[in-house]
Amino acid sequence: MTATLERLTQDELTTLGRELNDTYGQFREAGLALDLTRGKPSPSQLALADRLDTGDAAADGFIAADGTDTRNYGGLDGLAEARALGAELLGVRPDEVIAGGNSSLTLMYLYLLNAWLYGPAGPGSAWRNGQTTRFLCPVPGYDRHFAILEDLGIEMVNVQMTADGPDMDQVESLVRDDPTVKGLWCVPKYSNPGGQTYSDSTVERLGQLGTIAGPHFRIMCDNAYAVHDLDDAPPQLDNIMDACRAHGTDDSLVLFASTSKVTRAGAGISFVAGSPVNLGTFRSRLQTLTIGPDKVTQLRHVRFLRDLDGVRAHMRKHAAILRPKFDLVQRRLSEALDGKGMGCWSAPRGGYFVSFDALPGLAGRIISLAEDAGVKLTPAGATFPYGRDPDDSNIRLAPTFPDLGDLDQAMRVFTVCVQLATVTQRLSG
Amino acid sequence: MTATLERLTQDELTTLGRELNDTYGQFREAGLALDLTRGKPSPSQLALADRLDTGDAAADGFIAADGTDTRNYGGLDGLAEARALGAELLGVRPDEVIAGGNSSLTLMYLYLLNAWLYGPAGPGSAWRNGQTTRFLCPVPGYDRHFAILEDLGIEMVNVQMTADGPDMDQVESLVRDDPTVKGLWCVPKYSNPGGQTYSDSTVERLGQLGTIAGPHFRIMCDNAYAVHDLDDAPPQLDNIMDACRAHGTDDSLVLFASTSKVTRAGAGISFVAGSPVNLGTFRSRLQTLTIGPDKVTQLRHVRFLRDLDGVRAHMRKHAAILRPKFDLVQRRLSEALDGKGMGCWSAPRGGYFVSFDALPGLAGRIISLAEDAGVKLTPAGATFPYGRDPDDSNIRLAPTFPDLGDLDQAMRVFTVCVQLATVTQRLSG
Repeated sequence: MTATLERLTQDELTTLGRELNDTYGQFREAGLALDLTRGKPSPSQLALADRLDTGDAAADGFIAADGTDTRNYGGLDGLAEARALGAELLGVRPDEVIAGGNSSLTLMYLYLLNAWLYGPAGPGSAWRNGQTTRFLCPVPGYDRHFAILEDLGIEMVNVQMTADGPDMDQVESLVRDDPTVKGLWCVPKYSNPGGQTYSDSTVERLGQLGTIAGPHFRIMCDNAYAVHDLDDAPPQLDNIMDACRAHGTDDSLVLFASTSKVTRAGAGISFVAGSPVNLGTFRSRLQTLTIGPDKVTQLRHVRFLRDLDGVRAHMRKHAAILRPKFDLVQRRLSEALDGKGMGCWSAPRGGYFVSFDALPGLAGRIISLAEDAGVKLTPAGATFPYGRDPDDSNIRLAPTFPDLGDLDQAMRVFTVCVQLATVTQRLSG
Repeated sequence: MTATLERLTQDELTTLGRELNDTYGQFREAGLALDLTRGKPSPSQLALADRLDTGDAAADGFIAADGTDTRNYGGLDGLAEARALGAELLGVRPDEVIAGGNSSLTLMYLYLLNAWLYGPAGPGSAWRNGQTTRFLCPVPGYDRHFAILEDLGIEMVNVQMTADGPDMDQVESLVRDDPTVKGLWCVPKYSNPGGQTYSDSTVERLGQLGTIAGPHFRIMCDNAYAVHDLDDAPPQLDNIMDACRAHGTDDSLVLFASTSKVTRAGAGISFVAGSPVNLGTFRSRLQTLTIGPDKVTQLRHVRFLRDLDGVRAHMRKHAAILRPKFDLVQRRLSEALDGKGMGCWSAPRGGYFVSFDALPGLAGRIISLAEDAGVKLTPAGATFPYGRDPDDSNIRLAPTFPDLGDLDQAMRVFTVCVQLATVTQRLSG
């Protein structure tokens, strides 16, 4: 069957449906238990950083460059050398960075909590003081970003993703027309799940956005995949803070990153970056809730990774592990679905996900078929605010954790489920 | 001068004032720079746990007892073995414990934030829904506990500390008469700064408190010094959760602890414990803001400390370092101030502080004299809500960080400042 869906006769469709049902039945009987839900590194990726712990740390000493004893309290902003690493990673100055604990998600939550409850620019700027607070969410996007907003009762407004990033016409018009819009989520490089890297023009328009928006508007820029390239000539992301500086909108930008997918998932270090105004009000909240981050872990990291060059060298080892997996996903999708009109998918050059768009109305059905055959996929709708994909179409595939054999099996199941769901819909339609 | 202050003649007072001024002048000229402000472990205490990092962790493997790869995401409640250690430490069941990150202060903030913003028992129980939220604060107490409440706009009500813990008559009457009182801070063992360990009767009455209070009342029990004994026959704290269970008030108790003063300050692991109802609503908040704690650090800790016996063995090494310091403080205070009626002080058998009560109105003056002579003390009022000590009397001494020589010098300065301030007040009074 290489003809597109539209060209098949009813008989051809029926035959195809029967064949697919047989194949699917065999998968079900095989008792698979595969999981493509979350962007988790695989054990072989994690082993790349095991030397974090095998150095003789006591012999090397626990004292940072400025004499800080990392084993003791203090240092709300994190170690100077960790802040310097974060600055390189995010393209800002070290004094614009706070190096934190094991989770950039926590920094994002706390930043938004602070902005909503107390105000991003101090007294009088609290978002909750208004009637409604709205936030622009490029879709499909990252479920945990949406969960924070939902938790705080901030209304989410969908914005369409394009190949260049969020639809900036739509963003600018919403920001201009609706003063209750207080922010925008961004994953500017290898966007989750679509894999897009924002174009230079998008970055330039993000820099200008603060001139249109009110003074308490914030771009929440989660640069989670800043150095997570799969090939050697990766797409270049323009410096977003520089774009903001050029327009005097530095206060409108908050940047986040972590080493969770560089060294250890959930056991690395995190970064938040912003203008002195931004960090100042945020720091006053941090001061209430912690004596400081785990500086021993920060020291381990800077000794292991050294600087951005060290990070890039380390990331090439990840790429060597990940490339065959991403290639396999593309191969299986192409072999099974090319030219059939049953869906389209991203071919990312980095990051952790492949985004698949089924025909409208079929994502939930495909995911449920896959689950019944032992392949767990991210729940339908998860990539949309409130878990509601208006087209019931987007499916996020996370190929990093399984080994190649499992991934191969999972993709064979997935592509059969796509076809089966599509043909079944067509037959009953 | 061994006579008490009241028995000195005006001439004797004048002579004494001149002598004290001379001594104080010499201290000022010496250009000291000593710090008795915060309860920080000393470098020799921190070195006790350096083996946390010198084991060949990669050879030992990063896999927890249940097969969890500690280097990867997941496990919101923390490692099973870390929860078991926390359960022993806090006297509860492992399923009543969440093992967290590097800071129990963060867990306390998040618990209170959750209770205030969303409710300690889910929808409808949010403290902020009422007109006012009040909290009982035994004084003197811990400034960072008070800072969290102030941050959330929760009104603080002072409760007097006694040798047995908070004045429970006062606590019970406030809880009975004022439904806006939603909680009580406790440091039940070696209370900060007074050093009291709550008596069995106090613990029993804490267990009953939930029967007087409303269903959304919480005892915030920061057992920061659970195993921080200075001598071998330490005072015993009754099990508070058992007392609550006996009265069916389990939901009213939240317990906190950390290894910050066991292994590394700000680079250890933390614990929060409570009933399933309590942890359930709190967990839903945690889920929004983190993928889980740093499990590698948790694994390091349980391998290093093993269990409560291991912790106690480790704490005996701390005691050997700390005892001479606490003894020195007592000796210098006794030598200089015994029988003079110029103040009284605690003689704690554990914990991190000595609490000194000067004559009313003199704490600020003593602290400022000491600062001018190069000895930094915790700011006056810090041990009271809003930084306001109504008697301007309490001074918290933190003797753990300085070495014996520095501590000796600092105590000599301190005792002269106490006498100088007292005599000067008397002369001008």
